[in-house]
Parts: sequence; C-alpha cells; structure tokens
Amino acid sequence: MDSLPLYRQLSAHYVDAIHTGSLKQGDKLPSLRSLMRLHDISLSTALQVCRAMESDGWVEARDRSGYFVRRPQRLAIAPMEEPVADVPPDPAQFVSMRARMANFMARGRHTGVKLNFAIARAAPELYPAEALRNSMTRALRQRPELLTTASSQKGHEQFREAVAQRSLRIGMTVAPDEVLVTNGCIEALNLALRAVAKAGDTVAVESPTFYGLLQVLESLGLRALEIPTSPQTGISLEALDLAIHTYDDIKAVVVVPHLQNPIGSVMPDGHKQRLAHLCESHGIALVEDDTYSDLVETDAPLRALKSWDRTGNVIYCASLHKVLAPGLRLGWITAGRWHAQVEMLKYAQTRNNEALAQIAAGEFIAGGRYDRHLRRLRERLHMQRDQTADAIARYFPAGTRLNLPRGGLQLWVELPQQRSSVNVFDAALREQMLVAPGAQFSNSGRFDNYLRINCGWPFSKAVDAGLRRLGEIVSAVPPPR
Amino acid sequence: MDSLPLYRQLSAHYVDAIHTGSLKQGDKLPSLRSLMRLHDISLSTALQVCRAMESDGWVEARDRSGYFVRRPQRLAIAPMEEPVADVPPDPAQFVSMRARMANFMARGRHTGVKLNFAIARAAPELYPAEALRNSMTRALRQRPELLTTASSQKGHEQFREAVAQRSLRIGMTVAPDEVLVTNGCIEALNLALRAVAKAGDTVAVESPTFYGLLQVLESLGLRALEIPTSPQTGISLEALDLAIHTYDDIKAVVVVPHLQNPIGSVMPDGHKQRLAHLCESHGIALVEDDTYSDLVETDAPLRALKSWDRTGNVIYCASLHKVLAPGLRLGWITAGRWHAQVEMLKYAQTRNNEALAQIAAGEFIAGGRYDRHLRRLRERLHMQRDQTADAIARYFPAGTRLNLPRGGLQLWVELPQQRSSVNVFDAALREQMLVAPGAQFSNSGRFDNYLRINCGWPFSKAVDAGLRRLGEIVSAVPPPR
Repeated sequence: MDSLPLYRQLSAHYVDAIHTGSLKQGDKLPSLRSLMRLHDISLSTALQVCRAMESDGWVEARDRSGYFVRRPQRLAIAPMEEPVADVPPDPAQFVSMRARMANFMARGRHTGVKLNFAIARAAPELYPAEALRNSMTRALRQRPELLTTASSQKGHEQFREAVAQRSLRIGMTVAPDEVLVTNGCIEALNLALRAVAKAGDTVAVESPTFYGLLQVLESLGLRALEIPTSPQTGISLEALDLAIHTYDDIKAVVVVPHLQNPIGSVMPDGHKQRLAHLCESHGIALVEDDTYSDLVETDAPLRALKSWDRTGNVIYCASLHKVLAPGLRLGWITAGRWHAQVEMLKYAQTRNNEALAQIAAGEFIAGGRYDRHLRRLRERLHMQRDQTADAIARYFPAGTRLNLPRGGLQLWVELPQQRSSVNVFDAALREQMLVAPGAQFSNSGRFDNYLRINCGWPFSKAVDAGLRRLGEIVSAVPPPR
Repeated sequence: MDSLPLYRQLSAHYVDAIHTGSLKQGDKLPSLRSLMRLHDISLSTALQVCRAMESDGWVEARDRSGYFVRRPQRLAIAPMEEPVADVPPDPAQFVSMRARMANFMARGRHTGVKLNFAIARAAPELYPAEALRNSMTRALRQRPELLTTASSQKGHEQFREAVAQRSLRIGMTVAPDEVLVTNGCIEALNLALRAVAKAGDTVAVESPTFYGLLQVLESLGLRALEIPTSPQTGISLEALDLAIHTYDDIKAVVVVPHLQNPIGSVMPDGHKQRLAHLCESHGIALVEDDTYSDLVETDAPLRALKSWDRTGNVIYCASLHKVLAPGLRLGWITAGRWHAQVEMLKYAQTRNNEALAQIAAGEFIAGGRYDRHLRRLRERLHMQRDQTADAIARYFPAGTRLNLPRGGLQLWVELPQQRSSVNVFDAALREQMLVAPGAQFSNSGRFDNYLRINCGWPFSKAVDAGLRRLGEIVSAVPPPR
C-alpha cells in the first residue's frame, strides 16, 4: 500500500468509504480545497485523486459543483427464461462428478490463481473475526479443561440453545436437544441422506445444483434425478410431481429454498408449503439445506420448509460457514423422525464436534451482535453484487443474461449463443483467474453455457479489470457450430 | 479442598507425591518431627497424616524407623488362556450393535454416574492443557484471519509435516502430502472402509474389538467377521488365514496392532510382517488403527504395520484423542493406493478440518515437548494400571483373570464361572458406577463374562472403594446355570 503514489492511496481511501457506505450514491466528495486541507496535499495531487476516481468510474464531475459518487448504471441485461417443466426428467447418468471436479479443482490449485471468482464465500474482512477470536481466547482462559476433556456428545449446550432460539425466527420450533451439531452443512447432508436412502436409490435435486451435493450423492452411491429449477421460484413443483409419478424409487428431495446455489432463487411460501405436503404425501423425505437464509435481503419474515412439517418428514440442515466464519466447520441438523438414526450415524462417523468454535459462535449469536453483523454483511454483498452485475452488463457480449438474486454471494450468468464455459474456464485459468463453469452444477450437459461468479470480495479495480478481461474471453470463445 | 481437615489435605499432598513419582516405592516419608516442622503442625496432626496414609494402603510402618511407601502387593492373578484358532469363524450376525450400544450409552447418560470405568481416556490433568491453550491463544493473536478464511484442504501444513516427521519413528516414510487430516481416528476408519468396501462386503476384525469399529461397520452396511485374538500377540494369523480360505468376499482386515482395544495385545514384529504380506498376497486391504502406539511402554522401537507395506495396500489411521487431548477431534489417514479416493471422500463427507487445533498440536509435536509429555503420561498410566490390577486381584472373586498389558488406558478382565457382565453393568449402574460390559466388544455372545476397566484416572480412595464394591457385585452375580 505504502508503495502506491500518494494520490492512489488517497483515492483508495475514498473508494473504501464508498464500499463501506460512508459515502453513498449521490454524495459529494470533499472539495479540492477540503482535500488539500484534510490531507495536507497540493492542488495537483487533490486533482489527481478526483480524476483517478472519475476514470475508474467511482465518481462523476458535475458542472462546477464538484465530484459526486456515481449512481451505478444498470445496463440493460435480460433475465433468464423459465425452465421447461412439463417433460419427465432423465435420471442423470453417473458421469463421475467426482473425477470432473477433481480435475477442475486440481488445475485451479496448481496454477497461481490471482482472481478467484469460483469460490462461494465473502472476503475475510466481512466476517467478525475479532469478536470470535476474543470469545475463543476468553473461553480458553476461563475453561482450563476445555481441550483435555471430551466435548459434549450432541454439541455444546449453549450453542444448541442459541440455534434453537434463532430457529423461531424462520418459523421452526425445535428443542435444543433436537439440534445435532455437525462438521459443516456438508456433514449434515451426508447424515440426512445416509439416514433416508441407501446405495442405488434415487434422490431428486434442483437443476442446476451445487457440485458439493452432487459429490455427496455420488460418494454414497445415490442416483441424482435433476429437476428443472426456476431462477425466480426455485424447484419446479410440476416437474417434481411428474418425476414422482414417473419414478417410483425416489427416496428424498434435496432443496436449497433460500438463495439456491448457484441459481439464487428464493422459493415463495406457497411453493414451500406445497413442496412439504407433496413430499409428505408420497412418503419421500424432504431435505432442506438452509445455508443462505440469513443472507436474503427481505423485510418480510422468511419461513423454513421445516416450518410446514407436520410429521417429522423434513430434515433441516444449515451451517455458519458462509454467514459467520469460513474458518469454522460448524453446521447442524434437525432430523425429524430420523433423529435417533442420524445421531447414531454422526457418532459412528465423526463423534462429537470440538467445543471451542461452538462456544464462540454460540456467544456471538446469543449476544445480539449476530443481527448487526448480518445487516452489514447483506449491505456489503448487495453493493458488491450490484457492482459485479453492472460490470458484467458492461463487459460481457450482448445476449448475456442474468437474474439479480435477492441476496447472497454470487451471480449465475448465462453466456450467449451456447458458448462453452469450460472453454472460458481454460482461457481464464491461463491468466490466473478461476471461474466456476456451469458443467460443475449438473450431471447433464445442460448448463455448459453458464458461469457462477463470486461477489463476496470488495469490488476493487482488480476485480473490475478481471471482469472486463473475462468479458473479452467470453466474446472470444467461438459459439459451437 | 480447603474444606478438608488439615491432616487430610496433607496426606493428599503426599499421595500426590507418590502419584507423580516424587516419592517412590520404598522411599521413607518425612519423620513425624520433620512433618511438624515442615507444615507447622502438632504431633497429633502429623500422626493423623501418617495413619491416614497407612490405612489407605499408601505407606506401611516399619519398626521404629518410620513410614515407607508401600510396594504394591501384586496378588496372584492368572493370565487368560489363548483363544482357539483352528476352527473357521462364523460370520458374525448383524445383531445391531447400534441398538445395543445406544441402550448402554443412554442408560449411562441418564444416571448420575459418579465413577466411570467405562471410558477409554485419561484424566484431564494428565494432558498438557496449558501448552495447548497458550499455543491456541497465540495463534489467534498472530493470525487475525484464521477464523474468517477457509482452512487448507488436506490439513494444516505444519501439522502434516509434524505428523510425517514423527512417522519415521515407527518406520514409516510418508510425505506430508500423503497425510490427510480427519475428525479423529473414527473418521479415518470410515473413509478407509468406504474406499475399500461397499455395503454387503465382509471385513475381518479382531475379536474382541472396540465397539466403535463394530458401529462403523454396521453403519456402512458391512459384515464383521470376528477373528480370534490373543491377549499376547494380537489377531490370530492362523485363524485369519483359515477365514480367508473359507470366505472369498473379505475386502479388508482392520487391526489395532499396538495395545489392541480392549484386549491390550501388542503384535510382535514377525506377526506384523506376516499379516502385511498375507493381506497383500490375497489382495485384501489392511487397515491399521494405530491410536495407542505412543502409549506402549517399551525401549525397543515399534514398527507400524504400514512399514512393511510394499504396494500401498496398508491404510494407516491414527489420532491424538487418547494421547494428547481428548477435547480435540484430530486424526489422520495415510491411505496408500486409495489416497486420491479417500481424499475425495473426505472432501465430500466433512470438507477440511478447522485449523486452530492443528496449529496447536503441530507446534506441540514439532517442539519436542510431546516426548516429555508421553514419558510422563506412560509413567502415570503404568502406576495407575498396576494399582487397578492390584485392586482387582484383591477385591474380585477367585478365578478372575487378566493380562497386564504393556501400556495403555485399560484392563480387560475375565470374570470367573462365566458370570454375565451385563448383570454387573446393571448392578453397578444402580450404584452410579459405569463399566463397559464385554458384550459391547463383539457381535457374538463370546465375551459376556468380560469387563473393560479404565485406568486413566489417578487411583484415588474413591476408585479403590469403587473397585472393591465392583468386586462384591461380581461375587454376588450368580454364575449361569
């Protein structure tokens, strides 16, 4: 930072103020005179600061009245089309998501990646590192035997209480004893699927869906049946209904009702209720992955699928990995009528979780700071998502489509003219950029012309330049003949 | 502590000196005169101190020369017989270890247990709590983004280096990249078995074996084939060979070569070598659970089974749960030719482990303090095991047998005349004592007249009284007609 010229350091300072919201759209930058006085700089340096910000697109000069924070110009970009739902889905072939992902991941690891648009989390500075660290340090001091006695079987009691308490917010009434702490949401999903299905069984999933789920299914020998999913309303209930009547061996449906990954949909309450009842009436377990509900930007209260559960048929899974601290592997499961079985599977699989992270997270959630953190995180992500969408609209070729989701960490982008995202992946990797190609999100070839783009990092010049370059790469990829 | 009478506080102080080895067998206690001077107490209090220790069996009075630390009287107790190895084993029936254990565990949990002889770990004060806590506190201070960035995929690098370095000691040459960090040894075993076998396959195990393994097998739908196991030399190679020629679907053999749980055997090197070659020649995966090797009391270097592995056929699993810190869930796996598959399974099952525990454990192991800690832990456990064995010899009915293992946390005790340990479990639980009945260690009924007794806690008066009461309970249990 110190090696940057002074005017660059100062413009970075003001860009940061825009990022954090201290300076809002339409706000006036300090005048040249104020800048000179505030930072003890010459007129020409003050001018350089303003012009650098102007040329980067952060501010615009208005007449003689000064520089103003620019209103982002949402260029026209079309939304995606709704998926076709009235044909029965093919059971996806077992085309080894494992091998394909291993390939993408290994190549990403072995190249010195400078810009990573492929991940699905936010920048470290968007999470409450200090509060969690202090909490851990205090717990280590106050509980001298924390590390040398075995931690509690189901999870740390205060953490489970905090989770149970918070579940009320999304319409779930669960006792702390019904909350079983897991190593992230991914272990919760493993346990849920192991409890309700066995190798060879079929599980219905959203299409596209996150590759982590496809890997879990493959590793357990389960067959994924991909159900068309709308960017607006989530899994197509018509298509699911058709699938249930076509295949008689569907043992579970797994959905992400809030901010589906990668598509960003939020299911309307009416859909959630119908889905819960549809599964219940056919004796099919409904697994709810609710990793992202705390990132939904809404004033209306959200309701978990589980809140419509009358018979213990919904298994609720969640984690704090994306919303509180990516360095913690802290998830939980509320397994309805499979509770005892899931508890035994968890014990046989990894025993209990360590206590320290649970103590810190439990304190943070119970203490009310969690809601303040979430508000701030949602605001930051909102701005970053907008800025990223603007950049895509500006830099990507005509015909690119995306839907701006109501929250979350990423954008799901449809490339025009069926351009292959694997080609984009290859070309981007040569320039040390990582993107998540659509092929990762389905066992079918259906999403090859899609990219998932992370918006978790502050929209820096480097991000802007990366997206511009990515747009050029997409333009240069030839459409298939 | 302060509420105890003064003479009790002082006698506890000297008992502690015996525990820690400051006072050894045959050492003289300070004279009455010295005690009066040292602690500023009256003659009658000094006498009370010595008499309390004498009546608790810690010291004995000799003529007029004073009180001496008592040589434990190893009463005659017979070793167990060797198992019969020349009949082919029955494939154990699927009698739901899960339900049986759930029953034992639930009953243990719901009763206010005062003395827990059923666990398999040492008292908190025998582990280096302070060093680990300091290490964690320092890491939290020095690495501000530790909790808010995702931790490394395979495990924290320094930890994997420390593990790889230490593996040399047991004859294994592994690169840090071949060490994959897991949530305890139990996850390592899950991954190993998932990589080499699928539901319905048969896995050969020692008999008796720890119920955790039987649960893992059951939860994965694998069939356990129990192989007779010697308290001296471990799994019977003759019986295993016979089993391999009788059953053609054995996919893996799982053994604990060092301080087998519960039986305490340590396999001789010749046996280990033959076992490694037997499995290799039949294309059967050999899974080595090496949780306890650091607790073996021996001057001769130990060698892991894995050190005889020429073809990547041995999967090595271990953890620090029993030897470093029961509050950490820190294990690892070195999976030979299944490495890539195990890595993908781990990623799909629980992703990467949190970093903090790995940093603390890695520092501790790399720093040389680990060996000092282990020496002290082995000494303490040795003394406690001796004291427990003495108490069993003293209090249990004639015909009780046990083999004193060469280290570790527990004793495996054979009750006379086929008395049922489940009856002992029930009667002990009514008096708030928990024991591990032999029925937990086999799917056959073969070990119903065995108990596993923990020796991880300092041999206090309460432990002594508990064992005496347990002896009475065993005596009162009627032998089966």
